[in-house]
Amino acid sequence: MVISGMPEPSDRVRELHARMTLEEKLAQLVGFWVDQGGEVVAPMADEMATSNKYEEATRHGIGHLTRVYGTRPVDAAERAAWLAGEQHRLRTQTRLGIPALVHEECLTGLAAWKAATFPTPLAWGAAFDEGLVEQMGRVIGESMRSLGIHQGLAPVLDVVRDPRWGRVDECISEDPYVVGMLGTAYVRGLQSAGVHATLKHFVGYSASQAGRNHAPVHAGPREIADVLLPPFEMAVRDGGVRSVMNSYAEIDGVPVAADPSYFEQLLRQEWGFDGVVVSDYFAVAFLHRMHGVAASKGQAAELALTAGIDVELPTGDAYLEPLEERVRAGVTDEQIVDRAVLRVLAQKEELGLLEEDFVFVPEPVDLDSPAHRDVARRLAEKSVVLLANDGTLPLTAPAERRIAVIGPNAESAEALMGCYSFANHVLANHPGTPLGFEIPSVAEALRGELRSARITTVRGSDVDGDDRSGIADAVAAAGDAEVAIVVAGDRAGLFGRGTVGEGNDSETLELPGVQRELVERVVATGTPVVLVLLTGRPYAIDWAVSGDFAPAAVVQAFFPGEEGGAAIAGVLSGRVNPSGRLPVSLPRSAGAQPYSYLHPRLGGTTDITSAASDPVLPFGHGLSYTTFEHSALSVDDAVVMSDAPFTARVMVRNTGSVRGSDVVQLYAHDEHASVTRPVAQLVAYARVDLDPGEAVEVSFRVPPTRLAFSDRQLRKVVEPGRIHLWVGASCADRETEASIELTGETYEITSDDERVVRTEVTSGAVV
Amino acid sequence: MVISGMPEPSDRVRELHARMTLEEKLAQLVGFWVDQGGEVVAPMADEMATSNKYEEATRHGIGHLTRVYGTRPVDAAERAAWLAGEQHRLRTQTRLGIPALVHEECLTGLAAWKAATFPTPLAWGAAFDEGLVEQMGRVIGESMRSLGIHQGLAPVLDVVRDPRWGRVDECISEDPYVVGMLGTAYVRGLQSAGVHATLKHFVGYSASQAGRNHAPVHAGPREIADVLLPPFEMAVRDGGVRSVMNSYAEIDGVPVAADPSYFEQLLRQEWGFDGVVVSDYFAVAFLHRMHGVAASKGQAAELALTAGIDVELPTGDAYLEPLEERVRAGVTDEQIVDRAVLRVLAQKEELGLLEEDFVFVPEPVDLDSPAHRDVARRLAEKSVVLLANDGTLPLTAPAERRIAVIGPNAESAEALMGCYSFANHVLANHPGTPLGFEIPSVAEALRGELRSARITTVRGSDVDGDDRSGIADAVAAAGDAEVAIVVAGDRAGLFGRGTVGEGNDSETLELPGVQRELVERVVATGTPVVLVLLTGRPYAIDWAVSGDFAPAAVVQAFFPGEEGGAAIAGVLSGRVNPSGRLPVSLPRSAGAQPYSYLHPRLGGTTDITSAASDPVLPFGHGLSYTTFEHSALSVDDAVVMSDAPFTARVMVRNTGSVRGSDVVQLYAHDEHASVTRPVAQLVAYARVDLDPGEAVEVSFRVPPTRLAFSDRQLRKVVEPGRIHLWVGASCADRETEASIELTGETYEITSDDERVVRTEVTSGAVV
Repeated sequence: MVISGMPEPSDRVRELHARMTLEEKLAQLVGFWVDQGGEVVAPMADEMATSNKYEEATRHGIGHLTRVYGTRPVDAAERAAWLAGEQHRLRTQTRLGIPALVHEECLTGLAAWKAATFPTPLAWGAAFDEGLVEQMGRVIGESMRSLGIHQGLAPVLDVVRDPRWGRVDECISEDPYVVGMLGTAYVRGLQSAGVHATLKHFVGYSASQAGRNHAPVHAGPREIADVLLPPFEMAVRDGGVRSVMNSYAEIDGVPVAADPSYFEQLLRQEWGFDGVVVSDYFAVAFLHRMHGVAASKGQAAELALTAGIDVELPTGDAYLEPLEERVRAGVTDEQIVDRAVLRVLAQKEELGLLEEDFVFVPEPVDLDSPAHRDVARRLAEKSVVLLANDGTLPLTAPAERRIAVIGPNAESAEALMGCYSFANHVLANHPGTPLGFEIPSVAEALRGELRSARITTVRGSDVDGDDRSGIADAVAAAGDAEVAIVVAGDRAGLFGRGTVGEGNDSETLELPGVQRELVERVVATGTPVVLVLLTGRPYAIDWAVSGDFAPAAVVQAFFPGEEGGAAIAGVLSGRVNPSGRLPVSLPRSAGAQPYSYLHPRLGGTTDITSAASDPVLPFGHGLSYTTFEHSALSVDDAVVMSDAPFTARVMVRNTGSVRGSDVVQLYAHDEHASVTRPVAQLVAYARVDLDPGEAVEVSFRVPPTRLAFSDRQLRKVVEPGRIHLWVGASCADRETEASIELTGETYEITSDDERVVRTEVTSGAVV
Repeated sequence: MVISGMPEPSDRVRELHARMTLEEKLAQLVGFWVDQGGEVVAPMADEMATSNKYEEATRHGIGHLTRVYGTRPVDAAERAAWLAGEQHRLRTQTRLGIPALVHEECLTGLAAWKAATFPTPLAWGAAFDEGLVEQMGRVIGESMRSLGIHQGLAPVLDVVRDPRWGRVDECISEDPYVVGMLGTAYVRGLQSAGVHATLKHFVGYSASQAGRNHAPVHAGPREIADVLLPPFEMAVRDGGVRSVMNSYAEIDGVPVAADPSYFEQLLRQEWGFDGVVVSDYFAVAFLHRMHGVAASKGQAAELALTAGIDVELPTGDAYLEPLEERVRAGVTDEQIVDRAVLRVLAQKEELGLLEEDFVFVPEPVDLDSPAHRDVARRLAEKSVVLLANDGTLPLTAPAERRIAVIGPNAESAEALMGCYSFANHVLANHPGTPLGFEIPSVAEALRGELRSARITTVRGSDVDGDDRSGIADAVAAAGDAEVAIVVAGDRAGLFGRGTVGEGNDSETLELPGVQRELVERVVATGTPVVLVLLTGRPYAIDWAVSGDFAPAAVVQAFFPGEEGGAAIAGVLSGRVNPSGRLPVSLPRSAGAQPYSYLHPRLGGTTDITSAASDPVLPFGHGLSYTTFEHSALSVDDAVVMSDAPFTARVMVRNTGSVRGSDVVQLYAHDEHASVTRPVAQLVAYARVDLDPGEAVEVSFRVPPTRLAFSDRQLRKVVEPGRIHLWVGASCADRETEASIELTGETYEITSDDERVVRTEVTSGAVV
């Protein structure tokens, strides 16, 4: 039997591998969850001497140490010292002396006590700024590297397909290109600090039935290829990512973790990935216990390993005794073990772990330094989306005003953080433990921002539950105020704690609890109301955008992190001119899901269905305190070959009275193709800062990849034909239009084709 | 170029075809919509002489005459006389003398004025009685044949995948086997009368995104093969159906109407179908105008014809001039025209239309004879599902009681009929026109059923809209009564008229309008309330099944047809013991969709999602006025080869005090397979009638096909392993359990394998 994908190891790896027993090999393919709690507890520093389980698990070495920092609120320096000792022990006390690879969660910052908490991915998406995301990745990686962590389990590249899903909180956008651009930026940033990034979750997890976590995915190969896979391809080909994690999902009856076509064929053979694939936590066991495609743990192990999952996380389960038995019995070919081991050893070599002089020496480190704060603040500021505004914002002459700040998220630091932040984890699971660093709430930030205003705060209601007892006080406070700011939304959490986050899928997409009632009753006072939403998903808030009880203004922030309170305060005061744009459609209702702006002609509201499904506000929407005009969209050549890039140019002018930042959005529609194509697709975007009256020309050099799709034979092609182009304030706004004719033969995309639009911004005439 | 699927014509067809000009060929591939109204009006009898359009359209002959009877309320005999003249004209005045094939809608009875209206397909599904459905098909077919109609556009074999979809009203069940069994019975019945049945809609239409009509279908090949296609395969292989209509859907980016893999490869080459494929109305044009996979009508025609759509309905559009131009220009190979023409001529030959002595002589016919009434009544009676009952039903000593009959569907004949019934069409579009025959409403039937009871009727509310002004009267009437019967639900209609039916997709799955409020306020009077639902889809009625305002009993009827009022009255009085079972899950909410009871372990409510999705009442549920006990499930052999049938036996006993009919349901779960398998799957069912205390043994001889599924290579196989079996009151009730071990090699299903379970009911010991 020939095993495909066998690596060509270095001499060092080959020699090391040749010396390994089967037990030593298998030990390299698993992690051990340090400090998990309960039965599989590993040593806290003070328990180390007595933990037989840990001793037992590491006696032949160990592939990964899982979540050394991220499980409990432990001082990082203390933990680093423990880790240094452990690495030394592995070097000196195991036969082969191979150190462990240390991995940790890091989606919105390193998951460690007192570490900086950055905006969540939907906020990255709203900011449309990959430069800032890359900077964020770098400072996160630097913190990790200094603590001896080698691999981070981020970013999440699942394309949003259904806002009911609780893990939308961890996703960037419903547009694959935006996901790919920002996800790749994160990868570059993290890896530039020497830490390996891990793409999650390859692939399909976000498209689960009814948005229910782990539910089956109904999708065909074209949707997978054209919508779900492109961000991963970008992060592999352009970002050079070093690790990938499987999706828990089953797609059309086949669990991804048991499907070699994704890992061995697509990822490695077609895309050239040569890193390591790790399992999502417990995913190997799930093949047996949940999916039922394996009759035993040993069969699950063989299926997963054969599919190309090299390492079992968080802890060795199926990949240890059950797999060993099957190999010794001759049922499982040891070569698939060797393939994974060689990959793991190559990764460890690449990370320097196999050097003779490897030693981890902890350094003093500030996990929430001014550099962290600065990136967190700038990204948060760019991510706030102004959904609606009748002129109430920015608050005028705030110093003289009486302001009522209302709502369950007004005084809450937790409300600024997503479910994969460690600070959220501390607040949830260790309520007595201080966060250990400052996360000013929106109300606190407002008190700092508007020092002379008379600010009263009233909670009004909880995030969820049906307690209405606080609403009367809120109404009274609003009645006494000149403006009321209601800060509502989600509380992130895991599996039933919280309203969004892993396991917290939404049945209705209504704002949780009685918050809508709170807002409407405050609005009914007649006092102008600004609704500030801190959420982990877009909600069905048509009532807040128009209608009898619509607030005067609505500000949408997707969990903006430790500097998010200040960013929102800045937007409210006018110090920050909002520039975020919706990276997801604002949904009509749960009953209208799934929905994507990338639908073909018949996927939105039409005259052949009585049921509305179009969003309340479209993808790309976001207001500013100034106005922008887009005009004179043109293409350099009206006719180009289908294998050639084209250049589109558009004039963008600040037609208002304050400086602002626009996200210029170029959309396309291919009217006739061999398969159905979306009514709108974001082809390119660019952020431009403009003074009042200033205009610039933005040019986009668009490679053929951006118009490519999977044809009838599932080849990725560009077909000749006319492409309509437009630029406007959202996907639904054809403010200036053009078209281009593609000629020649159908062009099949090659691996050498560029995947990224090159953008230039040049000064135009200021009128 | 070799065109696949070219028929081997008879000598007569070959000779006829050889004489045909291109225009004459194309004319055979299209229909003409008689009496459509508007611009394309064809002759009413009195307009015939002046209609140039019709003359023009038929001068080279015509393939089909479309909806001769079904468009307007016209006397059938008069219409038949006109048709006889037209066929004579085509025989004598066109060069080749080929008569037209006449097709008509007939889903719930012939769509003609004064023709019987039978229960809708969901009611067939609830009745679980293919014998009655076959009888219904036969009497429908006999009416059609006597009127010179050759082809009926029914049945609909779309498997219910999302109750939001308005056309669920036309579907049978969410279980593919039930759809296949009852759909095939309809085909057999209709075709036994000499009328060709047409399977709709091949394939995928029911799985549209968010249940929106025509929206894209997200599905992979395994779901299509294992869930959506089996009913069609049964109706082709076992039912010998003569025609198939395409689905409007696009699946994973490819419109079915442009996909040869369905029609030419699967349907014809694999399943051996040799009839004619017709387009759904306007579907060929949609390839150009909606799906955008054709740049012109001519290209749309070529795509559809190449895909295997032989006839364009309702009227020739793309298949006439646009196609002719492309053939003459050499763009389109004339052979694909010939292929379709040969198929159409063969169908006409089979129908006797090519006989020298063909003549259509109308006969006097009663379209709503006692035979129709009898089948309609028996099917309606078996289809009523008793969802909940605290003992209030059957109504005791009704003669002495004061009964308030409330609700918008109480006095409505329309409420008994689905959107494809002609009577519904008359009421909607020709309000001045009498139906022409009796459709007693529930209230009328109750007055007949309970002659001595004091019955008052109050409307209470409309089906939809927000008018609450009638609720107070309803509350008052209920307060004065000893029992209140609220008859609520849907009004079927098309495209915005009505609450269910084609184009009427549901955003919320809440009972339309203010009907829930009406019911709850009537319940609040304290008078026992029986809720009777006349709907075209299952609704989210958790509040009616349990909770503070749950009625004392709930009766679910899926548009039960002209005898449905009497059937319901019989159930309420106790004359009829209810025996319908839910052919679809009673949904949790719109936000929990899509959902199917056929989900794998992770598709329902689990501890890894906080959002409930399990149904309010499960597939298969339905109460009776007696009780049934299922016991001693066993298999004849505990171990069988995977290619062999197995026999399962179960004892069923009437443990109550009245005679009743049970639907015995055998479910299976395959715990480990190479792909994920549903947690429950109906393998077999049988209806048994039992006297009080009587017991019978039901045995099911289950062929391997019933356990087969598509493996990783998409081969339909039975894999060795353990199968859990159970019988109970629904898919969720494991009242008696057994298991069977399949051994040997994985067995690949062949075309000769039986698809239907053989059932025997034998008397057992009466204890």
